[in-house]
Amino acid sequence: MTDAQGAQRALISAVRHFAADHLRDDAVCVALSGGADSSALTAAAVRAGLTVHAIVVDHGLQDGSADVAETAAATALGLGATAEIVAVRVAGPGGTEAAARDARYRALDEARRGRAVLLGHTLDDQAETVLLGLGRGSGARSLAGMRAWSAPWGRPLLGVRRTQTRAACDDWNLPVWDDPHNDDPRYTRVRVRSEVLPLLDDVLAGGVAHALARTAAQLSDDADALDAIAARAFTEATTARGLALDRLADLDAAVRTRVVRLWLQAIGVDSPRYRVVSTVDALVSGWHGQGPIAVGGDERSRLVVTRRDRELLAQRVNR
Amino acid sequence: MTDAQGAQRALISAVRHFAADHLRDDAVCVALSGGADSSALTAAAVRAGLTVHAIVVDHGLQDGSADVAETAAATALGLGATAEIVAVRVAGPGGTEAAARDARYRALDEARRGRAVLLGHTLDDQAETVLLGLGRGSGARSLAGMRAWSAPWGRPLLGVRRTQTRAACDDWNLPVWDDPHNDDPRYTRVRVRSEVLPLLDDVLAGGVAHALARTAAQLSDDADALDAIAARAFTEATTARGLALDRLADLDAAVRTRVVRLWLQAIGVDSPRYRVVSTVDALVSGWHGQGPIAVGGDERSRLVVTRRDRELLAQRVNR
Repeated sequence: MTDAQGAQRALISAVRHFAADHLRDDAVCVALSGGADSSALTAAAVRAGLTVHAIVVDHGLQDGSADVAETAAATALGLGATAEIVAVRVAGPGGTEAAARDARYRALDEARRGRAVLLGHTLDDQAETVLLGLGRGSGARSLAGMRAWSAPWGRPLLGVRRTQTRAACDDWNLPVWDDPHNDDPRYTRVRVRSEVLPLLDDVLAGGVAHALARTAAQLSDDADALDAIAARAFTEATTARGLALDRLADLDAAVRTRVVRLWLQAIGVDSPRYRVVSTVDALVSGWHGQGPIAVGGDERSRLVVTRRDRELLAQRVNR
Repeated sequence: MTDAQGAQRALISAVRHFAADHLRDDAVCVALSGGADSSALTAAAVRAGLTVHAIVVDHGLQDGSADVAETAAATALGLGATAEIVAVRVAGPGGTEAAARDARYRALDEARRGRAVLLGHTLDDQAETVLLGLGRGSGARSLAGMRAWSAPWGRPLLGVRRTQTRAACDDWNLPVWDDPHNDDPRYTRVRVRSEVLPLLDDVLAGGVAHALARTAAQLSDDADALDAIAARAFTEATTARGLALDRLADLDAAVRTRVVRLWLQAIGVDSPRYRVVSTVDALVSGWHGQGPIAVGGDERSRLVVTRRDRELLAQRVNR
């Protein structure tokens, strides 16, 4: 068996396991860019026995993008899938990368017609995502990477290496388009891929991509469990006016801070920052008579949290 | 106020907060190497009002180590602390670095005479520890870094930068010994410090050390909470012969896998590997009639886990 045949089998097996775990219907969409990962995924999904509809999004951002899309769609048809090309206009805040991503997911969601959409992210993409999350420093969720299944989005290849999708494309004789953005060092992800991961692999003596992917899977489970436990504790601690201190007192710090975060969201603080959550939590865990804590507001009023009568209370105060 | 004065205040304040949170007794030991971090810690602990006894461990591994120890002890005496030098012989498996560490902690534990021992680890050390843990890929605990307090060991400076301990030493006019090992690229930690962290900081646009330290603190809380929840669930699931499946069925994956790990430890598997835990867990979460799973053993017998009669059972089987 050649390496490429091994890669083909690994991909088909990954799709079969994914389908058995998550899919109820054999009809699926694949988001196909024409790159090695999504081309190999399209082929593997057909070979795994799924009824595949390839959706090729043409972002219109690079010269020749229409040709790339045509080639990708033709590849999908040649594999026995159906295919369509969706042209999108990319605009909006947050830079081209984020805007292109938003436009892509919107187009895929419209074109999928009730079917799951399989995405070609690999173990290498997952490792990069974990490292990108390190810079945010906001706990398990930011290191938990991408989910294998978050309806309607599925990622069957999170256990497969990028070298394997490339080898499978070679052996299946699939034309592969190499996005020049994937080598452009102006993108943070490209530098993580081309500079940080190779250095870490050298310094830590190998296996870093696998270790990061394993870490992501475990932290994702951890975050799910703690979120579920905190949601129950939040319900039990909620009173007509705020949060009952005696319900918070016995909670582990990890659960208690999550309850505080849920409550802050419930009273209208959109994405409570770490420092705000810690400061409010200290009203419970480090009480020494602190005054009201500002947690949000607008030009006319401040939203403050105080501790009173065995409760945490939220109040609006005019400026 | 100069930067150095700011650094002095930050250190003294860090020690005061640490003492208020964790210490019952004003008499403490400080592990003093003569480097900037532990020298600044010794000075800050004295200034914070603690009764400080400096323990200087002479590992005898470098030329002139006795002189370094003498200078450090003299510095401590000059600051108003008491001091002693403990000479150790470093030997044993695991390389010089690990053996020196073991010998050092043993010597500190013997010399402390019931007192807490403060260690000079900074925020930068914590960030390095998190990155070193990434390579292991064994979940929250391997990324949770060092604990601020794990009796009798205390780390008051985990929120303080290495630049601050250096600035404080300058302003307190403390002689600082620079361990040549701290620049030796044969040590993995040195390469993480001198190569990986600066690159990550450049690629992720700054703040990485703080982000890693924040991540460590949150993951440490998460791991504590999940370990406590799993310990209770383990007690409830334990039967005379094994683990009751109906007690495991409703647990979140993160708790269930921890219960499986606790049980494997209880039946004699020292440090169950991720793959072993996952395979045994699949007897609960992905049952399809699997056979016995080997989890350990010796030349004469294998230790296997099977699913039978609504329980997970462990058995010894002769080879």
